[in-house]
Amino acid sequence: MSIETLSLKYKNSKLLLLDQTVLPFEESWVEAKTPEDMYNIIKTLKVRGAPLIGVTAALSLSLYAKEEASSELFKSKAMYLRESRPTAVNLMVAIDRLIAVADKDYSFENIEAEAIKIFQEDVNLCEQISIHGAKLINEGDVILTHCNTGGLATAGMGTALGVIHKAHTQKKNIHVYVDETRPLLQGGRLTTWELDKLKVPYNLICDNMAGFVMKTKKVDKVIVGADRIALNGDFANKIGTYSLAVLCQYHGIDFYVAAPYTTIDFDCETGDSIPIEQRQPFELKGVRGHYGQVQWAKKEGVSSCNPAFDVTPAELVTGWIFDNGVYNKDNIKNIKDILG
Amino acid sequence: MSIETLSLKYKNSKLLLLDQTVLPFEESWVEAKTPEDMYNIIKTLKVRGAPLIGVTAALSLSLYAKEEASSELFKSKAMYLRESRPTAVNLMVAIDRLIAVADKDYSFENIEAEAIKIFQEDVNLCEQISIHGAKLINEGDVILTHCNTGGLATAGMGTALGVIHKAHTQKKNIHVYVDETRPLLQGGRLTTWELDKLKVPYNLICDNMAGFVMKTKKVDKVIVGADRIALNGDFANKIGTYSLAVLCQYHGIDFYVAAPYTTIDFDCETGDSIPIEQRQPFELKGVRGHYGQVQWAKKEGVSSCNPAFDVTPAELVTGWIFDNGVYNKDNIKNIKDILG
Repeated sequence: MSIETLSLKYKNSKLLLLDQTVLPFEESWVEAKTPEDMYNIIKTLKVRGAPLIGVTAALSLSLYAKEEASSELFKSKAMYLRESRPTAVNLMVAIDRLIAVADKDYSFENIEAEAIKIFQEDVNLCEQISIHGAKLINEGDVILTHCNTGGLATAGMGTALGVIHKAHTQKKNIHVYVDETRPLLQGGRLTTWELDKLKVPYNLICDNMAGFVMKTKKVDKVIVGADRIALNGDFANKIGTYSLAVLCQYHGIDFYVAAPYTTIDFDCETGDSIPIEQRQPFELKGVRGHYGQVQWAKKEGVSSCNPAFDVTPAELVTGWIFDNGVYNKDNIKNIKDILG
Repeated sequence: MSIETLSLKYKNSKLLLLDQTVLPFEESWVEAKTPEDMYNIIKTLKVRGAPLIGVTAALSLSLYAKEEASSELFKSKAMYLRESRPTAVNLMVAIDRLIAVADKDYSFENIEAEAIKIFQEDVNLCEQISIHGAKLINEGDVILTHCNTGGLATAGMGTALGVIHKAHTQKKNIHVYVDETRPLLQGGRLTTWELDKLKVPYNLICDNMAGFVMKTKKVDKVIVGADRIALNGDFANKIGTYSLAVLCQYHGIDFYVAAPYTTIDFDCETGDSIPIEQRQPFELKGVRGHYGQVQWAKKEGVSSCNPAFDVTPAELVTGWIFDNGVYNKDNIKNIKDILG
């Protein structure tokens, strides 16, 4: 079995991962020979994006199963890898599935089959999201997007960026504005690289230019991804998403969120119950990455507020692009039925 | 005659300027011994802020007049300094005033008197703006501001930041959110330093967090400065201002602009006729300053859109805080009469 995507290669008993920390300047592949390698790759953010983390962790455990005959040892290694990113729901789900297979009938073939299935499901989810979303895109549309939601965040073509990718392959002559997405710059650093790869025309802007671009340029749609979607359609996503939704409302621009059904939190009635994680203050006082690091505000004495994401209420959303179709304000209340 | 402000010292025939390029890490004063020194200080952005540039250029020419007996040489040096920042209206006005004095009755005393008058007028404008603006601030108000508009941008206490400063000295227990103001980070680098100096409590945020803060924290008012104000109340200011105004409208938050009457462009009927300057793409691909430089997006192939400012329509403004009082939507049409 052999897999090759924008960000992962699984063939000849090797798992290679595109090192996202050195993008966009280097396209360097790192090998995950062992679950320990994979753990470190996740910890050091060489692989990011919850769906991609789940898939690559599963493939890494598949390689381990080839060498290890004991299902007990396999399960303990799987539990170890689960700890590499405790907040990534996809990782938990993927590992729980492999453990269930190991419990039932442990063999390399069975584990690999399940890992490939996890991979293939993510590819299919992205494909379906992209197909449904691209139907909403008109010839010549100008689309603004946020953060990074493409082939660097998923095993497939992505969610919001997948829709953009699909519309581009359908030759709809789209143009994209991508905001840099402070503080971690996923838009400026990764989405620009990915759009270059896809040959989608775009302009990079700072986050605070979105209003200007909406007012003075033709912006038809904003499409973003989601970290978690409540049952009423409220959703959490990378900080800055909510401001974009409000700006869309004022300018009469359609605002879409694109995500797989796995993003729906069935324990969450509304966005009010989604906790907002605060990240470290240093992220606001400078930038740091493989590209270097600088700090322009003092380490001490500068108080900050650094929420990792924000919650956008359903009332600001034009449509929810899921793998099983597009929901609107009228039928979003039916998403409980999405699992059939 | 002796002057000392947050950012300039003029005494004992010396002109010292706070080097803003090394803030917030160093408080280093550079001497402008000659108009050539002053020219370089302006060019290298050691002094910034249109009002402060006008005042410091005038003081620098005052020192030159002490040494130079020829009014012709004085005027030619003044015209040379005029070129250091051709877009700064305050610089043009200040230099034209000194040239008019030189034409009428050239002497060091007369030139210095006029330079001091230019300085004092800026201080007074700031003071009046701050007094009028502070009346709008209630006990415990939370205020969000943008860019840098205080004692680093003017010879006085500032415009928008002057209002904040004044309300703080009136012990109104205010709290400030300051956005970093990408791409040049005047908020993150300079306003944080200035608020620390003033002991005003604040939190630094990224520009894309403004919506989140307005929705989840108590934000009572947004106050910004202005680069140019049209006769209908539309105004141009640092990029990002317009997005803040829209966010205020949605959240029912008062949005104020604070500026001296000199900011009104009497040739400009509406904001539509204000040209938007596009700045260099490299500013969006990284950061650079005395604090260091890094680049996270590729130099080639990344298209950008980098407007220096945006225009906020009068309909989004709650009040215009001028040195002669606060205008609202009803009487802003009378600003033509501001000159009496």
